[in-house]
Parts: sequence; C-alpha cells; structure tokens
Amino acid sequence: MDNPKDIRPGEVAIALPAAFDAGVYFIGHIRTPFKSRAECPKNTAESDAIGRVELDPRYAAGLEDLALYSHVHLLYWMDQARRDLIQQVPAHLGRPRGTFALRSPVRPNPIALATVELVGIAGTALTVRNVDCIDGTPLLDIKPYFASIDSFPNARRP
Amino acid sequence: MDNPKDIRPGEVAIALPAAFDAGVYFIGHIRTPFKSRAECPKNTAESDAIGRVELDPRYAAGLEDLALYSHVHLLYWMDQARRDLIQQVPAHLGRPRGTFALRSPVRPNPIALATVELVGIAGTALTVRNVDCIDGTPLLDIKPYFASIDSFPNARRP
Repeated sequence: MDNPKDIRPGEVAIALPAAFDAGVYFIGHIRTPFKSRAECPKNTAESDAIGRVELDPRYAAGLEDLALYSHVHLLYWMDQARRDLIQQVPAHLGRPRGTFALRSPVRPNPIALATVELVGIAGTALTVRNVDCIDGTPLLDIKPYFASIDSFPNARRP
Repeated sequence: MDNPKDIRPGEVAIALPAAFDAGVYFIGHIRTPFKSRAECPKNTAESDAIGRVELDPRYAAGLEDLALYSHVHLLYWMDQARRDLIQQVPAHLGRPRGTFALRSPVRPNPIALATVELVGIAGTALTVRNVDCIDGTPLLDIKPYFASIDSFPNARRP
C-alpha cells in the first residue's frame, strides 16, 4: 500500500522506523454497511449508520456495566491505510496539512478514534450508531465516554 | 508486571492471545510533573498541569497547521500497565466493573486517550494543559479535536 506513486502533489512521505516499539491485539471487528473506503462517510457526524461491534468472546467479561453509558469511544486499526505520509493534501483543502492536524486514516500509527452512540449490547456484540469505517475493521479498544473529560463544545478549529 | 498476585478480590484476569496482530511506533514522549503512577491525577479534568509533548524530529512536518486548533487528542501507550485484567475493582466503586466500562490504564491494548488544551508549539514540542500521565510516557498519535464529532456534552454516565 505504501506505493510512492500513490501520492498527490504537495504530499510528503517519510522513512518510518525499522522496528515497532510495541504490539497490539485485535480484540474484535466492526461490522458496517460500508464495503470500501469510497463508500465510507467522511466522519461519524455525517453518518447515521448502525454498526455492530463484535468483540472476541475472550474479552466478554470486559463489557460488564458498559450499558450504563450512552456513548462510547471506539479505537480501531485502519489496516488499509499507509503509514508514511506526514503531510497530506485533503481534497476539501487543496493544499498540504500536517498529518497530526488531520483525522485522516493515514498516520504513523493508523489508530482511529470514533465516538458512537451505544444502542444496545447482546452477548459480545454492541449495536452502535454513527459508524464510519469499513466493514470488518479490526477493533483495539472500547472506552466509556465521559463528558467531564471528553466534551469541549467550544473547542476552536479553522 | 502481570503478576497474578497483584489482583484485588473480585478482579478477573484472562489469558491474552499468543501473538500480536500489529505493531505501533512510539513517535515521541510526554513530559509531565508526575514521576510515578501514585502522583498522577485521576484524569485530565482533575489536572491543570502543563506538560510538554516531545515529538521525534522524524515526524516534524506532521505538525503543520496544528496550531489552528485549541484542543488536541493525545493517544499514548501506558507502558507500566498490565494488560490481562478484564474486570477491575476501582477504589471509588468497590466492586468489579468491566475493563471496557472503565478508563483505567489496564486493558488489552493499553492505549490512553487524553484531550488536552494546546497552549503552543515550538519546533517539535507542544505545550499542553491538563496532562495526567507519568513523565516519559510514549506517544502514539496526536489528533485535532473536532467538537462536531468529539463533543457530546449530554452523554449519559452512571
């Protein structure tokens, strides 16, 4: 996927380190209606889609009390994204912007953060609303959403 | 660190998979006033501390335009946390709760999400407010905070 030819004018690729520093487990997968990157909504705010988070049964006990929350963070692994672009040219912007100033899947560690509404839990499957990722995306973590530490309605952006 | 003896009554440990599914790079480190877990604030809402995010110079170009944002998400690797507890007994709760219903550092993939105020950027160092992690914590990612997709002030919690 890290084909140097797949780069837009103005984008910047870097050499990544020779070795990883730590390893992650895929703890489940996210089922969504989107079969390709082209079908995915731009972000969770532009999606009403219902998704299903299928947790590996090994981790079932970890869901205890999660239903007490209305929203959860999903951390997932964007396994189709290249990792070596440090500046990217988003179509909506038309000029380069730093990878850390973008929510693009393309980043050194392709970990996405998506906050979704928790609709229900049955066994090891969560039904959630507002998913935006490709069907089958590997899951890394589920965290409860705490407005006290996660919500900044007046945060400034360009 | 995964010493079976370091477990509270009611906590549940599981066998983790034999191999990792993907690897992460430590892209920098977070410098904070907190030299041990005991010194760390409970969360970012209980911290006014100023921290310094030191990005590896390899990734410098990724910061372009980040200063346009008032808040950023930091994803960091809690390298002192065990990964095998799937139910935990937080001191404030006094009974077991599922790991995915807690923001505890202890989880299969010890990736923390902390949203901090971006005070300034100089070279490859970010000055941020509200840090809660141990000095030297490895950094995985920086993302801009978008109120449109990240802020849910009315999210329900127990």
